[in-house]
Amino acid sequence: MDVARATAILRRTPTTLRALLEGLTEERTGSGGDEEDWGPFDVVGHLIFGEETDWIPRARIILEHGDSRPFVPFDRFAQFEKFKGRSMDELLALLEEARRSNVETLRAMRLTPEQLELRGMHPELGPVTLGRLLATWVVHDLNHIGQIAEGMAKPYDAAVGPWKAYLPILDR
Amino acid sequence: MDVARATAILRRTPTTLRALLEGLTEERTGSGGDEEDWGPFDVVGHLIFGEETDWIPRARIILEHGDSRPFVPFDRFAQFEKFKGRSMDELLALLEEARRSNVETLRAMRLTPEQLELRGMHPELGPVTLGRLLATWVVHDLNHIGQIAEGMAKPYDAAVGPWKAYLPILDR
Repeated sequence: MDVARATAILRRTPTTLRALLEGLTEERTGSGGDEEDWGPFDVVGHLIFGEETDWIPRARIILEHGDSRPFVPFDRFAQFEKFKGRSMDELLALLEEARRSNVETLRAMRLTPEQLELRGMHPELGPVTLGRLLATWVVHDLNHIGQIAEGMAKPYDAAVGPWKAYLPILDR
Repeated sequence: MDVARATAILRRTPTTLRALLEGLTEERTGSGGDEEDWGPFDVVGHLIFGEETDWIPRARIILEHGDSRPFVPFDRFAQFEKFKGRSMDELLALLEEARRSNVETLRAMRLTPEQLELRGMHPELGPVTLGRLLATWVVHDLNHIGQIAEGMAKPYDAAVGPWKAYLPILDR
């Protein structure tokens, strides 16, 4: 787990999402409307909420309390209430600022290889380490970039006709 | 099928891929090394080859010959030879230029709703229409953006530890 390399991916995500989403119609980037069906708007809200309550706050719990204090459980559905009525462009700006600030905090921690081995306690998964938390932050971004691409593809499901057989993104 | 909306997505893809990939280490963005295992480098090469031989050339076949002339079969593996020895930054620049030029060509076609219903003949899938071809171009981009995110996540597969259970991108 190389923190500098992880940071290089983390700081790009808001730019990637702006390139993908900014200024497109609501039809293609809006909310999926419920907890089982996230649209791009819900995913970006979820990423902002993660910046506020997940990655850096959990890193701090590990650094300050080790595995003696389990992480606060993460609310996977908070974005549905929290960002109601906001626009995609507002969300992209919020994510940009939250991520910029968190990447700065991460760099300022100047984590050593020994600190990356420090243990924390996940409320469902059990023992984890700080290094695994940071690797998960990166993969979580990539996972949701993929999910946003899925949400953008969905309105074209019928329009592609027989080509659907070659497009696994439409089957997820 | 709204051509202007499709174009809005198509012209963004090179910018999205630059935000995702530019300047990262070869370990995370390189070739998967063989035809069964595409890395981000192979995917970007495949997208460039599509600009050269798939979308606009097939649109032209439909406009000029309808379904009387089947499309030339697309070579899904051409990128492995064609871009050997090139860098990711070179490929991103090639894609940018090829896409810019093709989006310009598409706009200059000023396709009417009637033209979008024109039929073409796919060598494997059979009868298709110009509108379905253009919708597929868009979803194909999104499909491969998802695949690139998968390729970038893969090196972190072991590093995330038990969190893997929450990250479907690592299971595709």
